[in-house]
Amino acid sequence: MGNLGRDECRPDVPEDAGAREEERAARAAIMRMAEAGDPVMGRLIAAHGPREALEQARLGRLDPESARREAELALTSRRRLDLARLVAGWAARYTDPEALVAAGRERGARLVIPGDAEWPTQLDDLGDRRPFGLWLEGRANLRFICLRSVAIVGARAATAYGTTVASDLGSGLGERGWSVISGGAYGIDGAAHRGALAAGAATVAVLACGADVCYPTAHEELFGVVRSQGLMVSEWPLGVHPTRPRFLVRNRVIAALARGTVVVEAAARSGALNTAGHAADLNRHLMAVPGPVTSETSVGCHALIREGKAVCVTSAAEVIELVGSIGADLAPRARGPVLPRDALGEETRRVLEAVPARGGSGPAAVAVAAGVDLTTALACLGGLAAAGFVEQSDRGWRLRRSR
Amino acid sequence: MGNLGRDECRPDVPEDAGAREEERAARAAIMRMAEAGDPVMGRLIAAHGPREALEQARLGRLDPESARREAELALTSRRRLDLARLVAGWAARYTDPEALVAAGRERGARLVIPGDAEWPTQLDDLGDRRPFGLWLEGRANLRFICLRSVAIVGARAATAYGTTVASDLGSGLGERGWSVISGGAYGIDGAAHRGALAAGAATVAVLACGADVCYPTAHEELFGVVRSQGLMVSEWPLGVHPTRPRFLVRNRVIAALARGTVVVEAAARSGALNTAGHAADLNRHLMAVPGPVTSETSVGCHALIREGKAVCVTSAAEVIELVGSIGADLAPRARGPVLPRDALGEETRRVLEAVPARGGSGPAAVAVAAGVDLTTALACLGGLAAAGFVEQSDRGWRLRRSR
Repeated sequence: MGNLGRDECRPDVPEDAGAREEERAARAAIMRMAEAGDPVMGRLIAAHGPREALEQARLGRLDPESARREAELALTSRRRLDLARLVAGWAARYTDPEALVAAGRERGARLVIPGDAEWPTQLDDLGDRRPFGLWLEGRANLRFICLRSVAIVGARAATAYGTTVASDLGSGLGERGWSVISGGAYGIDGAAHRGALAAGAATVAVLACGADVCYPTAHEELFGVVRSQGLMVSEWPLGVHPTRPRFLVRNRVIAALARGTVVVEAAARSGALNTAGHAADLNRHLMAVPGPVTSETSVGCHALIREGKAVCVTSAAEVIELVGSIGADLAPRARGPVLPRDALGEETRRVLEAVPARGGSGPAAVAVAAGVDLTTALACLGGLAAAGFVEQSDRGWRLRRSR
Repeated sequence: MGNLGRDECRPDVPEDAGAREEERAARAAIMRMAEAGDPVMGRLIAAHGPREALEQARLGRLDPESARREAELALTSRRRLDLARLVAGWAARYTDPEALVAAGRERGARLVIPGDAEWPTQLDDLGDRRPFGLWLEGRANLRFICLRSVAIVGARAATAYGTTVASDLGSGLGERGWSVISGGAYGIDGAAHRGALAAGAATVAVLACGADVCYPTAHEELFGVVRSQGLMVSEWPLGVHPTRPRFLVRNRVIAALARGTVVVEAAARSGALNTAGHAADLNRHLMAVPGPVTSETSVGCHALIREGKAVCVTSAAEVIELVGSIGADLAPRARGPVLPRDALGEETRRVLEAVPARGGSGPAAVAVAAGVDLTTALACLGGLAAAGFVEQSDRGWRLRRSR
């Protein structure tokens, strides 16, 4: 997380807008050709930039140096790698880049790539497995709302206890100006999203399918609210359906986006423990909520706590006590907003100006004063809270006092 | 705990039996005159032995050196100490020593003092606050059954969840040859004793009143079973009633006797946290059982875990994994019994000979083969298990294999 807020100055990021859009299209095509998180493609892009990487993938031919490097890496890590087959697979899935971006735009989705102002640079911690890009649906700014965010994950087959705790945590974090990141699944995920939404906070659903695919289908209404108050995020192309391996690949993004991950309920071999492992590998705070020792769905949480991998947390306040204290550069509470006002968009600035310094205003009053609709007001307030500009008090939204 | 099994060779322990009984009587009188755990009396005994300490207390006059030392200690620790009043109080409560011991014997109680074979030397870790002696009621050998013992403590106002967990822990420890130490109170304490008893194991109730006083009165039947299968223990004279401060003073003995303490349920300011503090101060293993974060009676447990003071445990196996691994000299599982066979009493030796090496025998079969009654067999088996000679399998009691 040390690079949060760091300026982007990678050599493969061109200055002019045309080249930038070419790069975006190239990444859209790469996301269709290579599996998400494929480190071979990750290294190819790192070495040559996305446009050259796409060209090699399209022709099904790696440059000799890359081919030699991959063969050596496979050898030292004792990994079987059929490079020819991998690259041939890329070539077979080639699709016209411009068409992909245009189709996304038509659907109302946008592709955010490294170097964009909206790109969450904490994803760089994933190294060769950094997403090639992220398709987003929703009105919030991804980087903005992930600045102060916590991932809440856990069992799909959650108990009533687990969903109550997840939803309380989600709303408790939301009330204190923190965004909630989760996977959009049944059980803990859904409860966490709902809790955040109920507190008028932003929430991010990171999916293992296209950002436009409704999985599970029963979450259609929930995802609609997430789009209006937060974001649906995916590193797979639009329209792609989830597979079991994709859930595991997706988990690293949840862990990397958030400052810390809370496991609410997890059986002994739950997928949530995979996310927990990523959080630990990435040096993010890992937390677990205890439960009855008689409950199978708390076994994984207790194991994490017992083995010293996760800190035992029982409330949103305890979560924030932990994730809010990483270091001075990551504790905006004590220093005021982490983003300059100038970086805010036009609508967001109007909403910020409509928030009173004392007392508090409800979202509807803020919307009227800012001249925006309620949904826009809520999305902007969530982002402003996450960035440390405003906070929610008992009497509504107000400016946060810098100490 | 490093002194468990160490030979007693204190200079104030006389060799001949007559002097030893005089010392026992002196300590019985001291236990009536000074409050339990009074460090002033502790230091007086350490300096002059119990008979001389009793003489000074009876006359209400400290030797000048002791008086000077106490005044200095009070000054450096900024403690208010009315030494004259303290000592006058001792003198006022003087009672004939021989009569006290005789009355105890009549009631069926015995006074165990430092230097006795039955004295649990781990109590020496309490330093100046070591009990002056312990009144016991019951058939088991105190030192014997505390060799492999765990304290289970917690809220009196326990939930159904808490009592279920305490009783499961008690029986799980008992089945694996561990004794359970607790305070004989309502709630967690009672459930822990009952669990151990149900597994045919030994259990020790350490009271804040005389060993013959039934508090709470509803535990009369429970205490009867504890006497036959374990021990009622108190550092107060027979007949003494409990007071609030005595519960706190008593807690240090529970913590010191056991290899580790498990807190099952404890609200934010529960007395069980006092016992937990003693366990930590004494470098014993401190463990806590998590529960629902929505339950007030688990708040204290979660705080201990969260602050890293207690290890999160969810089963008897996890408790033993911890307390059974302190060091080679304290891991009889790996080395065979910690006491030599020769140290066993006549009845115990007969019971040990009646336990099969393979398969397993129920307690009744062992009792018949050993020619003792069932209660005796159970008490001996508990002690033998605690000392590492026998173990309970699915098919009954059997000799433990040395590795």
